[in-house]
Amino acid sequence: MRTLFYYNWQIRDEWLQVFESIPVIELLRDRKSGVGSFLKTMFHIIDVEYSWIRAIKNESDIIFQFEDYKDLHPMRNLSKKLRLEINEFINNWSNEMEYDIVTPSWMEKTFYKGEVLRHILVHEIHHIGQLSIWSKEIGIEVVNSNFIGRELFEKK
Amino acid sequence: MRTLFYYNWQIRDEWLQVFESIPVIELLRDRKSGVGSFLKTMFHIIDVEYSWIRAIKNESDIIFQFEDYKDLHPMRNLSKKLRLEINEFINNWSNEMEYDIVTPSWMEKTFYKGEVLRHILVHEIHHIGQLSIWSKEIGIEVVNSNFIGRELFEKK
Repeated sequence: MRTLFYYNWQIRDEWLQVFESIPVIELLRDRKSGVGSFLKTMFHIIDVEYSWIRAIKNESDIIFQFEDYKDLHPMRNLSKKLRLEINEFINNWSNEMEYDIVTPSWMEKTFYKGEVLRHILVHEIHHIGQLSIWSKEIGIEVVNSNFIGRELFEKK
Repeated sequence: MRTLFYYNWQIRDEWLQVFESIPVIELLRDRKSGVGSFLKTMFHIIDVEYSWIRAIKNESDIIFQFEDYKDLHPMRNLSKKLRLEINEFINNWSNEMEYDIVTPSWMEKTFYKGEVLRHILVHEIHHIGQLSIWSKEIGIEVVNSNFIGRELFEKK
């Protein structure tokens, strides 16, 4: 499962790289589907991942405002900063934690930790698929989203 | 990992259900991004999953033609038929198989079985995210793609 986090982060960084070549006005354009725009989608991915990881760690949610991350530089910094913490958690993950209970502050429900980790993984892949549609529509490079060929899966 | 296959199949079936309410002409319309159309995307998901599972099982690839599955009924039947076989494989999967070698007939490369399974999973989630963009664009129902709330993750 750890490998799928690394996969997501590798792809996310490649998209952030591609964004460099797109005018900010295109990145912010409301596309009337998905979360709305390229940058809103990226923000949503980063924000949702972190909120759930905090919930798993039984820490209170930290609210970020999209208004503060409407440009590539702050967006990339946010992703980088939060990843340090998330990476530490993922690296210390063990399968005995799968069925520990998570109680997110923003919902009246409980979940299993393993369930939440899978939710985070799927969430990012889903939204990245959406970016690839918009990119093709406006004629810019689409990041290859294959899992194979990334050397993420190495024999221990 | 098994759970993520069940997740994909649940979502796929919900999309096939939603397709029932969309005129076939819309399902076949070339949308100039992703794999092209709703039905081509669905066919691609089913086809790619099966090809890789056959490769993992060291069986030769079976080529399906989109022309034979351009309607909902044959598409659903194909998904259902192949799933029987894939499900059997997934249910018999064990972690000792992770690093067994796969040699797909259509590539000059080898992969690990665990790597290919992750590739299949990610592939479907990615393309399903694309369907959700098109659906919103043409104003039809979007399948909820959350992993949580599906009761897929139960304590053994």
